[in-house]
Amino acid sequence: MSVNIQEIISGNAKNMRRSAIRDLLSVANSPEIISFAGGFPNPNTFPVEDLKEIMAEVLEYESESALQYGTTEGNNRLRDQLALRYREFGLNITRDNIIITTSSQQAIDLTSRIFLDPGDTVLCGLPSYLGALQAIWSYQGVPVGVAKEEDTPQIIEKLISEGRKPKFIYAIPDFQNPSGSTMNLEQRKALLETAKKYDLLIIEDSPYREIRFDGVEQPPIYSMDSDNRVILLGTFSKTFVPGFRIGWVIADPDIIERYVVAKQSADLCTPPFNQAVAAKYLEMGLFDKNLLKTIELYRGKRDHMIACFEKYMPEGVSWTHPEGGLFLFVSLPKGYDTSDLFKIALKENVTFVIGEAFHCDGSGKNTMRINFSYMDNDKIEEGVKRLSKAIAKMFQESTKYSVN
Amino acid sequence: MSVNIQEIISGNAKNMRRSAIRDLLSVANSPEIISFAGGFPNPNTFPVEDLKEIMAEVLEYESESALQYGTTEGNNRLRDQLALRYREFGLNITRDNIIITTSSQQAIDLTSRIFLDPGDTVLCGLPSYLGALQAIWSYQGVPVGVAKEEDTPQIIEKLISEGRKPKFIYAIPDFQNPSGSTMNLEQRKALLETAKKYDLLIIEDSPYREIRFDGVEQPPIYSMDSDNRVILLGTFSKTFVPGFRIGWVIADPDIIERYVVAKQSADLCTPPFNQAVAAKYLEMGLFDKNLLKTIELYRGKRDHMIACFEKYMPEGVSWTHPEGGLFLFVSLPKGYDTSDLFKIALKENVTFVIGEAFHCDGSGKNTMRINFSYMDNDKIEEGVKRLSKAIAKMFQESTKYSVN
Repeated sequence: MSVNIQEIISGNAKNMRRSAIRDLLSVANSPEIISFAGGFPNPNTFPVEDLKEIMAEVLEYESESALQYGTTEGNNRLRDQLALRYREFGLNITRDNIIITTSSQQAIDLTSRIFLDPGDTVLCGLPSYLGALQAIWSYQGVPVGVAKEEDTPQIIEKLISEGRKPKFIYAIPDFQNPSGSTMNLEQRKALLETAKKYDLLIIEDSPYREIRFDGVEQPPIYSMDSDNRVILLGTFSKTFVPGFRIGWVIADPDIIERYVVAKQSADLCTPPFNQAVAAKYLEMGLFDKNLLKTIELYRGKRDHMIACFEKYMPEGVSWTHPEGGLFLFVSLPKGYDTSDLFKIALKENVTFVIGEAFHCDGSGKNTMRINFSYMDNDKIEEGVKRLSKAIAKMFQESTKYSVN
Repeated sequence: MSVNIQEIISGNAKNMRRSAIRDLLSVANSPEIISFAGGFPNPNTFPVEDLKEIMAEVLEYESESALQYGTTEGNNRLRDQLALRYREFGLNITRDNIIITTSSQQAIDLTSRIFLDPGDTVLCGLPSYLGALQAIWSYQGVPVGVAKEEDTPQIIEKLISEGRKPKFIYAIPDFQNPSGSTMNLEQRKALLETAKKYDLLIIEDSPYREIRFDGVEQPPIYSMDSDNRVILLGTFSKTFVPGFRIGWVIADPDIIERYVVAKQSADLCTPPFNQAVAAKYLEMGLFDKNLLKTIELYRGKRDHMIACFEKYMPEGVSWTHPEGGLFLFVSLPKGYDTSDLFKIALKENVTFVIGEAFHCDGSGKNTMRINFSYMDNDKIEEGVKRLSKAIAKMFQESTKYSVN
């Protein structure tokens, strides 16, 4: 007799949702397919030669600590480097404000774990980052999406009147995933004021902030906060390499202490080897040099992709012009469903992520997220051609139907 | 006005407990201190030269995948290597039975997350691994410890009669942490029969299995299970390097699927670079060569430490003679508390972990765990001398008191 797993899993497990992105990707792994689906950085941005040198040195001079267990807080040299960097962005912090996490996904997971009881409300964007929604769901939290045009204080007051005061606001102020939009200074101030007024935490998730192509850099919300209500999350996945899984949380030391305790039982520590390599990479001043190259490359790719969209897309399709990040956000006319388009596009050997996956209320069916960082430029053109063809087909089919 | 964190943290966070080990270690970081506290492998077992070569090759030939995001299940070559290895131990498995985790601590954490609702009971050893207790507590689970001499079925029946049927049995059958004891074949069969009778899962956590100095190797409980009720956890932390944070779960593919979904929101994937290096290390046949050296080294250290104990320890102290693993488990006469000893020992510049930390019911106050893998042999002798001196002092003090 086998154990009936479905019967004994926890409420958390019952509430977990598979990533639509990963499921879509698993059907789309043939080499003919051009994928705009993932949020992958371009491998040409990986500093392979520098890493060869650094790893050899870490193994030569630091192997005893780099290959051993490390502290839960993380490598002190790495924390110092990060503190130094963020001080340049206006944050008044030291290493004691930082814990290294195993990717910023873990940072979001630990945040949910520390603050959410089953049924607790979280305010997030509509759309918002799918991985954050997954983490919130996995602790039986309830994300409530706020669209850009909606009035956040009004929604909070309604929630409070229903006894559903949010535990925190989850915001991605820079080149939001998936919409690509960036909050300006007034919007940042207003969000912080709102959080103050209702005594809420803000989780400021900022994986793309430094990948800005044009426009004016905005200060982190954390830098404007004087009462420890902002918790800032960061990662090396888009600016260095995702394959090391290094992220971090920046917060008041008392809050960091909560993350330390939570992380102890989650994985004890983030790989010390990876942290030692990252620390050395920053110390050697290689980070900024490579970041500039990355920004150049991605700016070119964004421009190229937008040019291809302008050249090939049928009438009625609209797309964003993001000032940074990795994605275009694309809308079909209302009434169309990108889940239907996905099937047609798959036959044309091109994929994307349906916008619905990022909308916690199941809306956004006419939208999709398109990555421009990963593919080579010729594949971007070919992929946009294929996608345009699939959309044109879809439009044509629906005309046929409406004629019938 | 600052946010009152204590007011808004979750039930999970309120129930989390800091690791006594890590707290003890944080007061004990001066260079004069000889630490028998951690569960650190000896740095001399780290295959530094092999890693130099392998990392250079991974960067040369596999950087595009090794530095990129990976699948949640883990590197297929690594999963294949592990499946191959475990098939030699009698397991009928393929890569589909395996998910790579970011350390076996994460495997325990995900297990608790998938199966435990607040208040759920887990059967574990008395004593048991502190990190497992922490993970169980952090999901508001309730560990119930079963001492070696106790009757497991009787305890289970009592729990069932109280409406507290355990969700799973957490067992460390090989060189248990901290007791060092190993279950023989009959005990393994009996545990599996008990699990069958009451329809329970067994979490078989086996980080030390391959570090056996003498005696006869026992089959994994997983290999005797025909109805998918055993979930086996493993790690490279003791047999390769802890600094990569690579562990794994072996289970029925339907159960593995649950771990995949849970891990997606926990950290997306375990560092692909670390996995690529580990896969190559196994493929090149270097693992076993190094493991043999490690076993030799640790056997010598165990023998040396026991010889020092025999030479220096005052009357009334007893200790185990483990056939493998990293620890001696030491008992003072009943009535003594190793928390008191800890303070005296710290003045003598020697540390250990109090046994109470491993007892979920707060018992075991007269016990302590002593690591023999990490320290050099001369420090082992000096440390045992200091510890013996501290214990003798404690005995003397208590004689004084009883005279008064």
